[in-house]
Amino acid sequence: MAPRPLDYESINENVKKTQYAVRGELYLRASELQKEGKKIIFTNVGNPHALGQKPLTFPRQVIALCQAPFLLDDPNVGLLFPADAIARAKHYLSMTTGGLGAYSDSRGLIGIRKEIAEFIERRDGYPSDPELVFLTDGASKGVMQMLNTIIGSNKDGILVPVPQYPLYSAAITLYGGSLVPYFLEEEANWGLDVNNLRQAIAGARSRGITVKAMVIINPGNPTGQCLSRANIQELLQFCYQENLALFADEVYQQNIYQDERPFISAKKVLLDMGPPISKELQLISFHTVSKGYWGECGQRGGYFEMTNLSPQAVEEIYKVSSISLSMNISGQIFLGLMVNPPKPGDISYLKFSMESKAVLESLRRRAQIMTDGFNSCRNVVCNFTEGAMYSFPQIRLPPRAIEAAKKAGKVPDVFYCLKLLEATGISTVPGSGFGQKEGVFHLRTTILPAEEDMPAIMASFKKFNDGFMEQYEDYRGYSRM
Amino acid sequence: MAPRPLDYESINENVKKTQYAVRGELYLRASELQKEGKKIIFTNVGNPHALGQKPLTFPRQVIALCQAPFLLDDPNVGLLFPADAIARAKHYLSMTTGGLGAYSDSRGLIGIRKEIAEFIERRDGYPSDPELVFLTDGASKGVMQMLNTIIGSNKDGILVPVPQYPLYSAAITLYGGSLVPYFLEEEANWGLDVNNLRQAIAGARSRGITVKAMVIINPGNPTGQCLSRANIQELLQFCYQENLALFADEVYQQNIYQDERPFISAKKVLLDMGPPISKELQLISFHTVSKGYWGECGQRGGYFEMTNLSPQAVEEIYKVSSISLSMNISGQIFLGLMVNPPKPGDISYLKFSMESKAVLESLRRRAQIMTDGFNSCRNVVCNFTEGAMYSFPQIRLPPRAIEAAKKAGKVPDVFYCLKLLEATGISTVPGSGFGQKEGVFHLRTTILPAEEDMPAIMASFKKFNDGFMEQYEDYRGYSRM
Repeated sequence: MAPRPLDYESINENVKKTQYAVRGELYLRASELQKEGKKIIFTNVGNPHALGQKPLTFPRQVIALCQAPFLLDDPNVGLLFPADAIARAKHYLSMTTGGLGAYSDSRGLIGIRKEIAEFIERRDGYPSDPELVFLTDGASKGVMQMLNTIIGSNKDGILVPVPQYPLYSAAITLYGGSLVPYFLEEEANWGLDVNNLRQAIAGARSRGITVKAMVIINPGNPTGQCLSRANIQELLQFCYQENLALFADEVYQQNIYQDERPFISAKKVLLDMGPPISKELQLISFHTVSKGYWGECGQRGGYFEMTNLSPQAVEEIYKVSSISLSMNISGQIFLGLMVNPPKPGDISYLKFSMESKAVLESLRRRAQIMTDGFNSCRNVVCNFTEGAMYSFPQIRLPPRAIEAAKKAGKVPDVFYCLKLLEATGISTVPGSGFGQKEGVFHLRTTILPAEEDMPAIMASFKKFNDGFMEQYEDYRGYSRM
Repeated sequence: MAPRPLDYESINENVKKTQYAVRGELYLRASELQKEGKKIIFTNVGNPHALGQKPLTFPRQVIALCQAPFLLDDPNVGLLFPADAIARAKHYLSMTTGGLGAYSDSRGLIGIRKEIAEFIERRDGYPSDPELVFLTDGASKGVMQMLNTIIGSNKDGILVPVPQYPLYSAAITLYGGSLVPYFLEEEANWGLDVNNLRQAIAGARSRGITVKAMVIINPGNPTGQCLSRANIQELLQFCYQENLALFADEVYQQNIYQDERPFISAKKVLLDMGPPISKELQLISFHTVSKGYWGECGQRGGYFEMTNLSPQAVEEIYKVSSISLSMNISGQIFLGLMVNPPKPGDISYLKFSMESKAVLESLRRRAQIMTDGFNSCRNVVCNFTEGAMYSFPQIRLPPRAIEAAKKAGKVPDVFYCLKLLEATGISTVPGSGFGQKEGVFHLRTTILPAEEDMPAIMASFKKFNDGFMEQYEDYRGYSRM
């Protein structure tokens, strides 16, 4: 019998080739174990509320009122909601015709897009045009749309860091493009070396690939590094010389845990460089409410800003946005709240700033506890999490462990992470899901478990790792010293 | 200078070829006029709240509480919220780890998927497996994902009705597939004639196209017809014979304005037919909170159910869903509320049933006023809106109007709709955006303007149309009698 159209044999080959490790084998096994009653610590994905982070009060008050606008006419509303939340809900409702139940324009509500443009302007010191800011159901959807826009065939290449967040590899495969990897330097704190970029692009061109764009993730995912201004300048220059668009994934811009390299946006560095590059280089910058001290992942609020795109190209992107009509309106309002949090003098300011500061300070401490915990294991080396929400330790696996993995039909770091999961309930993602150099192994965890649980989690990791080493170490050496 | 990667010349050709008339030239012109201060009646898209439909109270109370769970501990909560809304909010919050701020599993919350499966079971009288129900940010996103799954190249064809909702033509073009049109029979109340399907598939095959799936929209968009059981049986038999998957767009299943042909799902008809077809034919059914008496478009809550897909294919679809992590959680809860509205005996039952009944009964009356209004124009013929939210009158344009349109460089129905917009502020979509037979012209309006405004809108249309005819009629004939 011929296969049916939705049988595995028949479906889009690009769908089958796509891999997405963050919710891959490890996650599926963790979900099974959870069903069987085992306690799982899900550190596979940056999902702060799932690990106990409480939502910030003020934005949730505003959204609740926007969802139930009839409360605004209730004489008791002041018993449950502060006056500034009520005022803000009215402000956002005045931007819509039909409230949260109506589709907005497919680019998002113009009022919110203006507030975002003003935020970018304050942040960078340069004007931002709301007509070039598009809202999306989470930043991932925007990345996918823009990759689909730029990829026309498997001859179109996208430079992607290794290690990388697998959204990029997955979407490039799904849309039939070619991923062109460039390596980050683990020994240089996951820095970006332009020589690696030159090598990567030369290699791709020799294979007949037109490299069209470069992706940076700053702060880094899974690597946690913060790029310096000089580094960003260099890579912008490189993109300009090579006629590449730059996709700047800046979703962790609020998550900074050191003071030497504060976040600086690719757009600011570009505009600081002046013409001709500032007027020509095409840049797409992504941001979200899912990260920062918000962590509102489940609200699906994201945006991208386009720099140096022609009106004709923007129109094409608008047209594609239109096909799925509009992003969810409450996510749009969260974006508005993110770029316009309560100000000094507002009734809710003190509470809001205490809540948000507590989240960021705790993340900073957790980043340190985790890095230190990993580095206390003799076969683990881990760069400090300068930013973002992840720790990405290198695990030096003994040859016998690598052999045992091969026998089990597993990639060595998958083998290690599965054993870690079964022994401790800690659900991580193997480094192979993000890409790494041949013969080097990592895992990614988030730094998101509750601060009070962190010492026990790291102790549990260390105990597992010690046992693993005892079982597999043969005193002849490690995978890489 | 070489074009840059995101210049119009460089971007994905499929993006450029894609058309989406619902937010096309007419919509853009209407938006401009609105900016200039003109009052626009947006009937281009089925967006009930934007035209004044009020949200149902109970679901909004539940969602507001889920967004602000701290209210549940407030002693004053009972002053603003009824006890059953409070209980329901707790019920949904118990399904999530981390509330509305956490990503869910990429298929959606299992608790909601179970409630949907139970709803399908009650509706159809056959078991439904929650593992085969995936939640999406609106039904459109699900349709796009499944088209991307089934289309592997431009040799893969999808049978799509003409006229059709342009989501289908747009997504098929975007993903590089081939649209294979089949005509609905306007004279037979927009019925589906299997002979047209046979012709369409034979033609496609002679061009080397493998037709992989067929789309039906029931109740119809833009045509408003409700398919009979016999008609659905026939087309299922056709799909089975020709080895096609069926995509059943059933988002208007609650919007029925006649009693002869109540909604019957493709899944029910399929399972009623018994083996072998009931065990083999692959069916994807779509539903949403955007339509019905809910009209909660801005919440972006949709789902699809898969029938007769192998676990291996479902896994591939799950993997692709994972790339964008999860749909928005409040939209998921709206889906739960839609399939489990308040029941007799619940505190909120009476209010909820009065509100929902009022919406549906008014839509029914508006469907009648609109059909009658169009049919009162001597050059307009309009089938009754049996279901969905649209009226799709045929406008018989005099030859001189067609000539004038050509001179203006416009498709004749675009020319007519633009003039209608400028004269009256009524923003419609030309029939050419949905597809129509050669030399026949239509427009689509929603039946959603407020009932009290409807007579004035139809009078305004009639006055415009009379003037248009006076200007262009030459007493020699019409485009098609």
